This record gives sequence, C-alpha cells and structure tokens, in this order.
Amino acid sequence: MNSQQFREAAHAAVDEIINYYETLPSRRVQSAVEPGYLAPLLPAGPPEDGEPWPSIQRDIESKIMPGLTHWQSPNFMAWFPANATYPSMLAELYSAAFTAPAFNWLCSPAVTELETVVLDWLAKILALPECYLSTGEGGGVIQGSASEAVVTVAVAARERFVKRKFGEMAEGNEKDELVGRLRAKMVGLASDQAHSCSQKAMNIAGTKFRSIPTRKENEFAMTGGDLRQAIEQCKRDGLEPYYLTVSLGATPTCAVDRFEEIAEVAQEYPDIWIHVDAAYAGAALVCEEYQHLTKAFGSFDSFDMNMHKWLLTNFDASCLFIKKRSELTSALSITPSYLRSNQYDAGLVTDYRDWQIPLGRRFRSLKIWFVMRSYGINGFKAHIRRHVKLGEMFANLIRGRGDLFEVVTPPAFALTVFTIKPRKGQKGDEKAAEVTNGFTPDAGDQDVVEANRITKEVYERVNASGEIFLTSGVVAGIYAIRVVSANERTEEKYLQKAFDILVKTAEEVLEKDKPNSVQNGDVKL
Amino acid sequence: MNSQQFREAAHAAVDEIINYYETLPSRRVQSAVEPGYLAPLLPAGPPEDGEPWPSIQRDIESKIMPGLTHWQSPNFMAWFPANATYPSMLAELYSAAFTAPAFNWLCSPAVTELETVVLDWLAKILALPECYLSTGEGGGVIQGSASEAVVTVAVAARERFVKRKFGEMAEGNEKDELVGRLRAKMVGLASDQAHSCSQKAMNIAGTKFRSIPTRKENEFAMTGGDLRQAIEQCKRDGLEPYYLTVSLGATPTCAVDRFEEIAEVAQEYPDIWIHVDAAYAGAALVCEEYQHLTKAFGSFDSFDMNMHKWLLTNFDASCLFIKKRSELTSALSITPSYLRSNQYDAGLVTDYRDWQIPLGRRFRSLKIWFVMRSYGINGFKAHIRRHVKLGEMFANLIRGRGDLFEVVTPPAFALTVFTIKPRKGQKGDEKAAEVTNGFTPDAGDQDVVEANRITKEVYERVNASGEIFLTSGVVAGIYAIRVVSANERTEEKYLQKAFDILVKTAEEVLEKDKPNSVQNGDVKL
Repeated sequence: MNSQQFREAAHAAVDEIINYYETLPSRRVQSAVEPGYLAPLLPAGPPEDGEPWPSIQRDIESKIMPGLTHWQSPNFMAWFPANATYPSMLAELYSAAFTAPAFNWLCSPAVTELETVVLDWLAKILALPECYLSTGEGGGVIQGSASEAVVTVAVAARERFVKRKFGEMAEGNEKDELVGRLRAKMVGLASDQAHSCSQKAMNIAGTKFRSIPTRKENEFAMTGGDLRQAIEQCKRDGLEPYYLTVSLGATPTCAVDRFEEIAEVAQEYPDIWIHVDAAYAGAALVCEEYQHLTKAFGSFDSFDMNMHKWLLTNFDASCLFIKKRSELTSALSITPSYLRSNQYDAGLVTDYRDWQIPLGRRFRSLKIWFVMRSYGINGFKAHIRRHVKLGEMFANLIRGRGDLFEVVTPPAFALTVFTIKPRKGQKGDEKAAEVTNGFTPDAGDQDVVEANRITKEVYERVNASGEIFLTSGVVAGIYAIRVVSANERTEEKYLQKAFDILVKTAEEVLEKDKPNSVQNGDVKL
Repeated sequence: MNSQQFREAAHAAVDEIINYYETLPSRRVQSAVEPGYLAPLLPAGPPEDGEPWPSIQRDIESKIMPGLTHWQSPNFMAWFPANATYPSMLAELYSAAFTAPAFNWLCSPAVTELETVVLDWLAKILALPECYLSTGEGGGVIQGSASEAVVTVAVAARERFVKRKFGEMAEGNEKDELVGRLRAKMVGLASDQAHSCSQKAMNIAGTKFRSIPTRKENEFAMTGGDLRQAIEQCKRDGLEPYYLTVSLGATPTCAVDRFEEIAEVAQEYPDIWIHVDAAYAGAALVCEEYQHLTKAFGSFDSFDMNMHKWLLTNFDASCLFIKKRSELTSALSITPSYLRSNQYDAGLVTDYRDWQIPLGRRFRSLKIWFVMRSYGINGFKAHIRRHVKLGEMFANLIRGRGDLFEVVTPPAFALTVFTIKPRKGQKGDEKAAEVTNGFTPDAGDQDVVEANRITKEVYERVNASGEIFLTSGVVAGIYAIRVVSANERTEEKYLQKAFDILVKTAEEVLEKDKPNSVQNGDVKL
C-alpha cells in the first residue's frame, strides 16, 4: 500500500467509522451471531498474493460488523462502559505510525516523557495525594488493564513482604526454605464485592486469596471492622496477610469501601500492601463532589483507574499510580546490556519496563493527552455529571414502580441495580415477600429463588430482544439486573426506552407466571 | 469533536503521517533530546476547557517529533525492528472505533473469532506442528509482548508442575507446606543468550532462574548436552527444573538453539515446560528454507513470535501458541457470575481472558488480518528474503575489510554482529591479537579490553553522528556492534552508507589511537 493508496483507504475508513457511529442507535446493540459464525465465512488461510484495500474493507461490514457488540451504542447499558472518542482514535493512529516498542527511554524519549507528564496531570485532577506524583517518590504508569495493574502490584507486594522478613539474611538453602514456607502462608485479601482480578492476581503471584464478606446493611462496603476480623482470622489460621485490594466502585453494585476506617486499621499492619481498585468509578474523582474519597489514599500504596472505562479514552489506558516507585522497580527490574542506556545508568530517566510485567509498550499517553486537551477538565466534569444525573433519573423511574422493581442498593456512579418483585396472589405470602425484598435472603428461601428466577427471565427476554443490552450479577445470593449507561452517546430518551422495555417485559413475565395463570405449572392455590 | 471535525482532523492526521513516512530518511534517526526535555514545554496541567484539534495537532510536530526515535527510518538498524505499515495503522483505527474490552466472547464475538482464525492461519504459514492449531487441543492467542507471553506460560508451567506432584493431595496445611517447599526449589532455565524476559518471568512467578552457558564454537546455541548438564547440576543442588526457554534467534547474535537435541533430552524430563521464544526470527518461518526449524516443536509446549517485530504489523501483536490450551486456562481461569455467559457455560466459545494475565483485550486480530491480506504469503516471503539478502550483503562488506572488522558469528536473520580490530604496531602482539580475534577471551586479557574499548568508541561516535542508529551488546565478554536493517523502508544504499560511516569512524578512531599517535596517552613504544 503506497502513500496515495493509504490516503484513499484511510479516508474511506474514516467515512465508514463516522457512518458507524452515526448509525449506532439503529444497530442491534448486542451481536446476534452464533458461536463459530466467522470461520465458515473466511478462507482456510491467507491469500497467496496481496489483495487491494477495497476488497478487505468490504469484509468489515459484511463479516466483522455482525459479530460486534456495539459498546458505543446509546442502547449499551451492560457491564461498565468502554468509552471511545474521536480524539482518542486519532491518537491510536499516530501511535501506530510512530511505533516503537519503547522498552526504555532511548527507544523514543517522547513515549516515556509524555506518559510521566500526563499521569501527573491526571493524579492532580483526580485529587490524589501528592505522594503519587512523579516529582516525589511516586508516579504513574499506563497499564493495559486494571487486572494487569493488580498483578503488577501484587508481585511488588509479595517481594516487599518477603524482603522485610528476610531481606538481611544471606542467600542460600536456609533462606530458600524459610522464604518457601512463608510464601505458602501468604494471603491476599479483597472484599467479596471486589473484582475477580484480585483472586487471579494472587494465583499468578503464587499466593493464597481470601475474600472478606460484606453486608447489605453497609451497602456492600468493606468496613474497618470487616478488615480487622479477616486479618485476625488469617493470623489464627496461620496465614500471613500481605496484600489487600480496596474498591472504589466494585463491579456488582459500585460499592465503595470505607477507606478511612481501613486506613486506621492498616496502621497496625504496615506490611500489608493496600491497592485501590477504582477501575470504573475512579473517573468520577474529576468532580469535586467525589474528591473527599481520596483523603485516606496517602495511607495506601497504589491506586488504579481506567480512563478507558468512563473517561473518554479508548481501551487500553489503565492508569496505575504508586506511592513508592522503587518498590515496583526493585521487584521488576532486570537490566542486561542491551536494555541499558547511558541515560539509564546515570539515573536520569524512567524506564517504564521496570514498572510493568511486559517489556515493550505502546505510545498510549498520546491518547490521554489528546483526550484531556480535547475535553478539558470542565468537559470531563460535565461528562461524569451528566451520566450520574441520568443514572439517578433512571433509578427514580425504577423506584416509581415499586410494584414491579426493587433497587438493591442506592444508585451510584450512574449504575442502578435492581430485581423484579414476584407477585403474591395470597395474603399469607407477605412475610415471605418481605424476606425477598428486604434482601436478607437465605439461599434455600423459596421466595428468593422465585425472585431470582423471575428476574433472570426478564433479564434474558430483554437482552434477547436486542433493543438494549444489560448485564446481570449475583450479589448476596440475589440475582439482580444492572443498568449503567455511561458512554458519550447516552441520552435521557434511551434510558426512558430501557425503562419502558423493562416494565413491559416484567409485566409480561409476571402475568404469565401469576398464581391463577394457566400456563404456570407451579401455581399456589 | 463532531463527525465533520473528526473527518477534517483525521484527514490532516493522515497527511501528516504520510509526510512523516516520506521524510523519514532525512530525519535524524535517533532522538537527540536530553532527559526531561518535554515537561518544560508543556503546561502544569490539562486545560480547563477543551482545545480545538488544530492546536493539538500543531504540538505533535513541535513537541513530540523531536522526542521520537524513528523506528521506520531506513537508517534505523538498532535492536530488532518494529515494523509498522499502512494496513496495520488502518486496523488500529478500526480497533479503536470498535472498542470493546473483549474479556469474553459475548463482549464482541468477532474479536475472539477473528483471533482464532488468523492465528490458525499464522500457525500454518509458519509451519508449526498441527498440535498448535485451535482445531485440536491447542491454539493461538495474541499477547502484548513476547515477555508477557513468557510470564503467561511460566505461570502455567509452575501450576502444572505443582499439580503433577501434589494434585491428588487434599487441600490443607500439610499440602501448603509441601507446595511451599517445592516452589522454593523450582527453577526455570534458559541459555545465557536468551532474552532477559525469561529471568523476569521467573521473578514474577516467584521461582528461581538459572542461565545455561553456551559456547562460541556452537555459535552460542544451547545444545542437548548443555541442557542435560544444567538439569543434572540443578538436581545435584537440590533444585527442581520446571521450565525452559529455548531461543530461535536470541537477542545478542540471533543464535538458534539445537531444538532436536533438546527435544531428545527433554523426553527424560517430561515435567519441564519448554517454550520457544522466536520473538524476532520466528517471522522467517514463513519461508520454506527456515521451516525445518519447527520439526521438533511438537515436543515442546508453547511457541511465541512477534508479528510486530519483523512481520509488518505494528506493535503490539505477539502471537503465542500453546499445545494444550487446558494447561493455560486451568492456571488462569477465574469465572465469577458477571464474566460468565450462556455460551461460555455451554463450552461453545473461547474466552481469551483465560489465556492471558490481563482480563480485557483489544481487537488486535484485525491488524493481523489486514496485514496478511494486504501482503499475502508471497509478500511476507519477499519481505523476509529481501532483508536476509541485504543482511548478507552487509556482512560481506564487513568481511571485506578484515583489517578493520571481525564478525563474531555468521550473519543470521539479517543481523550482523562484529567488532573493531585494534591495530597492532608491533610484531610481538600478533599472538595477543589472535586471542582477541578468535573470541576466546579471558576477561582480564588486555587485548580484549582494548578491542572492547575501541569498538565501544566507534559505536558511540557513529550513534552520536545521528546519521544511523545501531545498538551494541556484550556476548562472551566481547563488546560487539549489532546491525540489523529490517523495516519496510530498508534499501541497499542505506546499508552501504552505514558501512561507509563505520569504515570512516573505525579508521578515525584507530588512527587517533595508533601506537605512534601523539594523542594517545597509552602508547606502547
């Protein structure tokens, strides 16, 4: 492909992308393909000779598009969002053009230096304590995902813990034996609401994992008391807690752990590395009304948020901040002759390969820079506030139909989590219904089982319709529907439509299943 | 940025990128900025309000470009190449537009399915044994880098090893104790030529690492005998070898380990996971003349090559193939309710998050698809053969000046590794010179020290000139210059120019340092 062909191809691609974005509302949001749809549409191998661009481009609409789930569609309300924007796409284009594996400063100094600058900018606008800035002993680094960030800090935490116990001891069999025994007892902790990536990170680091139970009356936040109890239980069981994930906006209901209480308890256990996983909700820290949440972060060791979820930057841009960068680099640095440079040896430059698991890295800071400059701080704030407001509007619609729906936790960060209320045909069922709706379920409770069944059926019917796309989750034994609408194309009318679909579907399912319905094989008479 | 603004901005960006590529030969290949150049050019934080695109774009040329090292320049001959091409850039643009974190099949089925298809295509054109195809028990997955791939398989190897020893044993303190002791003795191996990422992976996996010495007379290949000796020594030292990296094109001199000998030795140690790191040179397997190298790979467990080095796809596209995918997924799978799907539960789909360390992933298969179709198999072959031929041409130029240069190992995969010969003013020095030039150096040998000093000085002068960019490395105590010119813009004339610069610089340095030179304080009279 020569320059002129590239120009033509790129213009055609840009037109196709614009057309894609403009037609998003009318596309079926969730792909309807069956598993294995693609292979039969493609040849058994690449062509012997190259093909011209137009024949490649044609296959995007015909073969790829049907297999896409449209995360930028205003009808996408599943998981957490993955914002993509035009300035961010431009940055990917430049990043590809300027390709350098950037494993050290010398590879392309701008890649490293822009990353340091924009992550300091980000730390400031998120109101992180100063200790996370590169100007002190800390600093930020872009990772591929929040889960990668957790693995990275877990390894640093493991090494710090071992070093503090046996750092002074001479290398040798005796030390190996002691370290081996210690490692077998080391355990990482996170609440039962925290993302599963903490458990995965513990598996990768080769240590144990224990989940800390939370309670609905605390809105699923981990409290200082929960943490203390878990640590003490670990100690009684002969385990050594060395790592803790605390969540700012945990996946199921956007729970926020009680940071100040946790920081206080943590003072008694200074060898536990505390990492704040703010993957999604961390974006809200650009708004003053959320910034009180960062007050205790100076007591923690690391913080991570994904600009690629809710801050207008396409995947990947997970921003990890470390209080003491030397604790990361001492765990991850390996510097053979071919990775050294005069600047590295002189201690003048950052080599981000020592801040992460892989060596090579892309020029991802470019998209953070483009996006920050295109939107400005005020643009970020307006973006977050608009979604939070739309989320509250939607939660109020749900609350307004208390006959059909029950919210599980107060709406937070544009997320509403709710269940469908089973109808009760008889008076005597009121107490049982209370159990269901008060969400203190016993796994064997027939009404919870029924509510879960109905909620699941409504959820599956809604998604099968293809008009909107939601996800569900199980929290404290309750099967709940999650609605979060936080991409750039979201508007009130789409949330209203989602609500209308939910009402209609819930009514259909409840009608079908009501006690005197003939279709229902499970009637109570 | 609205659609029309994006169209204009994208057109301007495409023009800038084309202009960048067309002016590459005239740009200083290695950035000349000083550490810390960028921060003073930028404000202390992002703007309060968004800026229009033209003011952002202006800063690319003025602030970013000076900090770039131009990997696509024909004057770039450092490390290994990082190919970027127009079709690959187009794919990055689409990938950004279609953003989905793609942690499971449902996120966007096309992301998963295209990856399975194109990695099977790649396995076939690289002549990998059938066991690496997804149609059997194996399959391929795109990782961010070869180093990430090594960590991924190291964790799978560690878990497989422990499971084979203690898999049947009941969980509990006794097992923990035994596993802890075993892990403290587990060691991963790689030759002293293998990339440092193997050692880093062992650190991350929390196990030991031992390097296997190679010899110059074997062209730095690890032999079956070297491996057996290392394993036996480990056993004598009470260690448990569980993982081995073998290299196809190791970083310093592109050494290729003796795969068939190693496969034979490995039969006696079936619990050792063997991973082929073919990060750079694996690309050459598209050509029949290299395909005999893959014959023994059926005896190994995994194979990784980077399309983003020498196969026309921009970073990142590291292609990892596994013989038994269940060994990867059983080590890395964690599946909470919100990551499950009906298709996953039914075993119908691949969820690549279980094949890698992070959860989320980009739509990287798109670039492999675009590139494969744009070049075709014949385009790939022509690309590789052209560079191999240019590399041989360059090596012959170097050999033709035996008075100045000495090649360290035969040129391989377009890489030439050589040193500068110190001049000898006196007859009695001939024996000493032989030691240097025969490369069986003793670290204290005065002539090796002198050759290293001169080679380093030539190397640094050449790079300081900014006309070409080379890297150096230390192999078997010898400081050597590496020249590898394998990006799309390489031509014979640039290698000829590089040779001329090297001759001129070597002559200057030797002249300055010759025994009767007055500038030389270290003269031998």
